[in-house]
Amino acid sequence: MPIYNAPLKDMDFILNDVFKADEFWQANENLSHVDMATANAILEEMAKFSKNVILDLNRSADEAGGAEFNQGEVKTPAGFKEAFKQFAEGGWVGLGASEEFGGQGMPKMLTVLADEMIWSTNPSFMLYPLLTVGAGMAINDRASQEQKETYLPKFYTGEWSGTMCLTEPHSGTDLGLIKTKAEPNAEGSFNISGTKIFITSGEHDLSENIIHLVLAKTPNAPAGSRGISLFIVPKFNVNADGSIGERNAVAAGSIEHKMGIKGSATCVMNFDGAKGFIVGKENEGLAAMFVMMNYERLSMGIQGIGAAEFAYQNAAQYATDRLQGRSATGVQSPEKPADSILVHGDVRRMLLNIRANNEASRAFAVYVGQQLDITKFSTDEEAVRKANDRVALLTPIAKAYLTDKALDSALEAQMCFGGHGYIREWGMEQCIRDLRISQIYEGTNGVQAIDLIGRKTTKCSGAFIAEYIADIREFAASMADSKVKAAAVQVCSDVEDLTQFIVEQSKTAPDFSNAVAVDYLHAVGLLSFVYMFARISQAAAAKPEAFYQNKLVLADYYVAKVLPDLAARAQRIKAGSELIMQLPEEYFTAQS
Amino acid sequence: MPIYNAPLKDMDFILNDVFKADEFWQANENLSHVDMATANAILEEMAKFSKNVILDLNRSADEAGGAEFNQGEVKTPAGFKEAFKQFAEGGWVGLGASEEFGGQGMPKMLTVLADEMIWSTNPSFMLYPLLTVGAGMAINDRASQEQKETYLPKFYTGEWSGTMCLTEPHSGTDLGLIKTKAEPNAEGSFNISGTKIFITSGEHDLSENIIHLVLAKTPNAPAGSRGISLFIVPKFNVNADGSIGERNAVAAGSIEHKMGIKGSATCVMNFDGAKGFIVGKENEGLAAMFVMMNYERLSMGIQGIGAAEFAYQNAAQYATDRLQGRSATGVQSPEKPADSILVHGDVRRMLLNIRANNEASRAFAVYVGQQLDITKFSTDEEAVRKANDRVALLTPIAKAYLTDKALDSALEAQMCFGGHGYIREWGMEQCIRDLRISQIYEGTNGVQAIDLIGRKTTKCSGAFIAEYIADIREFAASMADSKVKAAAVQVCSDVEDLTQFIVEQSKTAPDFSNAVAVDYLHAVGLLSFVYMFARISQAAAAKPEAFYQNKLVLADYYVAKVLPDLAARAQRIKAGSELIMQLPEEYFTAQS
Repeated sequence: MPIYNAPLKDMDFILNDVFKADEFWQANENLSHVDMATANAILEEMAKFSKNVILDLNRSADEAGGAEFNQGEVKTPAGFKEAFKQFAEGGWVGLGASEEFGGQGMPKMLTVLADEMIWSTNPSFMLYPLLTVGAGMAINDRASQEQKETYLPKFYTGEWSGTMCLTEPHSGTDLGLIKTKAEPNAEGSFNISGTKIFITSGEHDLSENIIHLVLAKTPNAPAGSRGISLFIVPKFNVNADGSIGERNAVAAGSIEHKMGIKGSATCVMNFDGAKGFIVGKENEGLAAMFVMMNYERLSMGIQGIGAAEFAYQNAAQYATDRLQGRSATGVQSPEKPADSILVHGDVRRMLLNIRANNEASRAFAVYVGQQLDITKFSTDEEAVRKANDRVALLTPIAKAYLTDKALDSALEAQMCFGGHGYIREWGMEQCIRDLRISQIYEGTNGVQAIDLIGRKTTKCSGAFIAEYIADIREFAASMADSKVKAAAVQVCSDVEDLTQFIVEQSKTAPDFSNAVAVDYLHAVGLLSFVYMFARISQAAAAKPEAFYQNKLVLADYYVAKVLPDLAARAQRIKAGSELIMQLPEEYFTAQS
Repeated sequence: MPIYNAPLKDMDFILNDVFKADEFWQANENLSHVDMATANAILEEMAKFSKNVILDLNRSADEAGGAEFNQGEVKTPAGFKEAFKQFAEGGWVGLGASEEFGGQGMPKMLTVLADEMIWSTNPSFMLYPLLTVGAGMAINDRASQEQKETYLPKFYTGEWSGTMCLTEPHSGTDLGLIKTKAEPNAEGSFNISGTKIFITSGEHDLSENIIHLVLAKTPNAPAGSRGISLFIVPKFNVNADGSIGERNAVAAGSIEHKMGIKGSATCVMNFDGAKGFIVGKENEGLAAMFVMMNYERLSMGIQGIGAAEFAYQNAAQYATDRLQGRSATGVQSPEKPADSILVHGDVRRMLLNIRANNEASRAFAVYVGQQLDITKFSTDEEAVRKANDRVALLTPIAKAYLTDKALDSALEAQMCFGGHGYIREWGMEQCIRDLRISQIYEGTNGVQAIDLIGRKTTKCSGAFIAEYIADIREFAASMADSKVKAAAVQVCSDVEDLTQFIVEQSKTAPDFSNAVAVDYLHAVGLLSFVYMFARISQAAAAKPEAFYQNKLVLADYYVAKVLPDLAARAQRIKAGSELIMQLPEEYFTAQS
C-alpha cells in the first residue's frame, strides 16, 4: 500500500525560517490571533487526519469505481461520508473562512500547507470541501448580509455544501457563449433554466443541502461576458427560518466517467426553471467569480504539490528497497545480492528533480498565500496594491507551472518503480490519473499562460513582472555570493529581456503572445523557483545541520540541472510565431 | 467515438520518396520479391483491418475491464478472438517472418508501418501477435532445425503463440539475479521450476497452444548473467507428430491490474517442474534473447508513433470542430458564434509539436527498419558491419526517444480537448494510459539511455556515433542551403562535442555517464530527428504540391521550436554528475 507522511519539518522550515510567518502575523492586527504554535498544532492535526483517515480511502474509492450515480442521486465512495463528518467536525471546511460566519480565520499561507496534505492523500475527497470553500468565498465577497448569514455558517459546519456552475457543453473557456437563462419573478427571485457540465460535487450524499452558484443570462443582457449574472440556486429551497424546504428544480442528469479523481462526482446539472437568487449586481457575475478564482487556481497548484510529494515519498522508498545491479564505482552493499537502485545516477536524477520542484513549489505556494493574505488583511494601501498585482501575476504560475512540474514529477516517480509503477496496487498510476486534471480544469494551463502573457504582462507593458524582478534583485543583493544568487541575478535579466521582446512583438503581431505563452509561463516559473531557492538558501545557510545544508545542495542542483530549461524556452520565444500561424486550418486535418 | 485513418500518403512518401524503397529492394537479391506496389497493397489492407476491425474493440475492451482471469484461464476481451482469427488468416502474424516457415518475408522497413496502424488502433490486441513474432525470431535464430519446424509454422498460422519469460519478482533489469531452475532429465529435456512475472500473453484463449521461451539457470551454472540458458516450455507438450499432447506443468497464477493495455493479459507464470527444451547452447540464453531485442525495442518505439498518430488525428479534429473565443487578429468565422480553437497559437503549437515528432519518428522507424534489413538481407560484409553498429546505436533512441516524445504528444493532444480530454468516452485518456507502458517495458527508458551512453558510446569511445554523424554530414553536404541543413550541421558539432565530453569524463568518473544518460539520449534523439527532417526536406523540396511544401514548413518548425531542447540538454550534461551523486542514500527517505 502507498505510504505518506506529511513533510511537517519542511513546512515549519518554510513558514518559520523562510517566510518568518510569526513576525508577519504579529505585525498585522488582523492576523495577530495566529502564531507558529497554533500553526504547527493545526498542521500536526491534519497530518494525522490525512494519513490515518483518508489515505486508505483514496485507493479503495478508485478501485471500487468511484462515485456512483443512480436516478439523480450520487453515492460517494465507501468511507467518504464518515471521513467528511470527521473533517467537518474538526472545523476544517472553514479553516480559512471568516470567523464572523463560523470559520477559523486562518491565513492562506497556513491553509495551503494543510490543503497540501489532503491533496497528497485523497484528491477526490478534497474536491468536496474545496468547492464549498470557493462558493463561500464568492458569497462572502459579493452576496447580501442576509445571504451570507443564511449560507455561510451552514457551509462551515459541513451541513451544506457548495458548487460553482460555469461550464456548458458549448461554452468552457469562452464563458461569453453561455445559454443558461435567468427569468425574473415578481418577488425578486429568478427562474434558472439550462444545462451545466463538469460540475464538481454537483450532487452527492455528504451534506443535507447543496448550494449551487450559477452563471446565467438575464433577459436583454448584453451579449458575451458582460451580460453574465451570478445566482444562488439551492438544491432544496431554504425556508425563512433557515430550515430546509422543498426540492428545487435542479438535478444531476449523469456523472462523467473520467481518467481519475473517480471518487469525486463530476455532474451534468439540469436547471429546469429552478428558483435562484441573484448575487451582487446584474451582469457582474463574472467579476464575482473572479474574486475566488485566484484562490481556486492556487488550490490547483497545491493539488500538484500534494500529488508530487506523495509520488516522491513512495518512489524514494521503493528506490531504497529495490536491489538491482551494482554501483559503477564498486559494490556498495556486499552483504546483499545487489545494490539499491539509488546507486544509479539516473534514479537519483529523477528523485532530485521531483524533490527540487516540490520544495520550490511548496515555498512558492506559501509565498503566494502570503501575498493573498496581504490583500485580505493588510491595512497598508500600497502594500495591498502591490500584493494584488503580485497575485494577479503569479496566479497563472501557481496554477499552471506547479501542476506542469507536478505531472513531470509524478511520471518520473512512476518510472523509478519500473514495471511495478504501471501496476495499480502501487498507487503511482492512480496518482498520475488523479493529478492530470489539475492541468486541465479551472482554465487549462494553456489558458493560464495566455492570461499571464496577455492580461498580466503585455496589457500593463510588463509592469507587474518588472516589480517582481525588482523585488528578486533586491533580495539577491542581500545574499552572500553563491551559485543561486548568481543564477537569480542572471535569470532576472533573461526574463526581463524576454518580456521586453514579447511586449514589443505584440504591438505589431496580435497573435504573437498566444503562440509563445506557454514558453513564457515556464520562463517565469523558473524565475520564481530560483527566487524560492534563493530564499530557502538564505534561511538555511547559517544552520549546520544536514537538514539545512542539504537544502543548499538541492538549490545548487536546481540551478545546474533544472534551470537549463530556460535556455530552450528563450530560444523558442525568440523564434516567434510565424511558423505556428502560417499553415492553413485545413492542414491540420488533411489526410496524410 | 475516436477516429482513425491510416496515414497512407505519408507512409508512401517516406518509403518511396525519402528512402527510395523500390531501388533498395530491387538492388538486393534477397528482397527483390518486394516492390512498392506490393508494399502499398499490404499497407492498404492493414489500413482497413485496423480501422474496421480492431479500432472499436480497443475502447470496448478497456471499458469492460480488459482480460479476465479465472482459475488459471484467461478470457480475452469480447471480439478479440474473432479479430485475431481474421488477423492470422490474413497472414499478418508472419508478415516479416521467413518464408521457409510460412512467413511472408517482408522487410522491416515495411512491417514497421503496418505495425504502426495496429498500435494506433488497438495496442492491447497488438501485444498478442507481437510476443509470438519475438519468440519466433529467437527460435529462428538459435533453435535447432527440428525445433524451428515444430514451432514456427504453427506461430505464423496463428494456431500457436509465443511468450518471452524473463522477469522475476526480484529480478528485472538485472537478469543476473534470476532464480528459475532448469534440472536436466536423462532424455535431454529439462524440468523448469520458478516464477516469472509481467509475462505478456502468458495465458489467453486466442491460440491452441502457448510456447514459452524461458530464461533459467542449469545446475552449477556460473553466477550472474553468464549462467543463463534459454528454454522452450510449451503449455501443452507437443507429440512427435506435431499434435498437441498433455498439459505441461506451467500455469498462470494471476494477471496484473494495470494502468492501461488492459486487454492484454500480463501474467504471473508458475513453472512447477515443467518440461523444457534448451534453445542453443547452455549459458548462452541472454545472447539468444538479445537477437530479438533490437526488433522488440523498435516495436516499442512504433507503439509510441501509433499512439501519437491516433492522438494527433483526434485532437486535430476536435480543435477544428470546437468553437471558442475569437482570433486575436480579428474574427475568422463571422457566421459562427466563435472561431475554431485553431486560431489560437497555443493550440497550433501543441498540434505542430505532435505532428513534427510523429513525422520524424515515422521516418526514423523506417530508417532503423532499413538498417535491420541490411543486417539481415545484405551480402555486403562492410554494409552489414556498419548497419549492425548503426542498429546498436539507434535501438535505444528508437525505443526511448520515440516513446518519450509520444507521451509528450499524447498529453498535448489530450490538452487540446480541454475538460473533454479527461472524459473516457473521447478515448484520449485511454491512449495515454495504454501508451505509458511503452516507456517502461522492454527496459525502461532510463535503462535504454544507459545502454546508449555505455555499451554503445563510451565503450567504443564514440565510434558508432562518429560514423553516424559522418553520414549525416555527408547527407547535409548534398543539400541546398536551408535552415534544416544549417541546423543539421550545427547539431552534428554539438553532439560530437557532448560525446567527447562524456567519453573524457567517464574515464575518471565511472558513475558520470549514468547520471547524464537521459539527457544524452535526448540529444542524440534530436540529432536523429533533424537528420530525418533533412531527408524529408530533400525529398519534398522539388515538389510544388502543398502536401510536400508543408513538410518544409514543418521541418522549419521543428528546427525553430523543438530543437531548442538541445540547449537545455547540453547545459545539463556539462553540469556533470557531482550534485547528483553527493547526497547520502539516507537523504532520499529522511522525513522532511
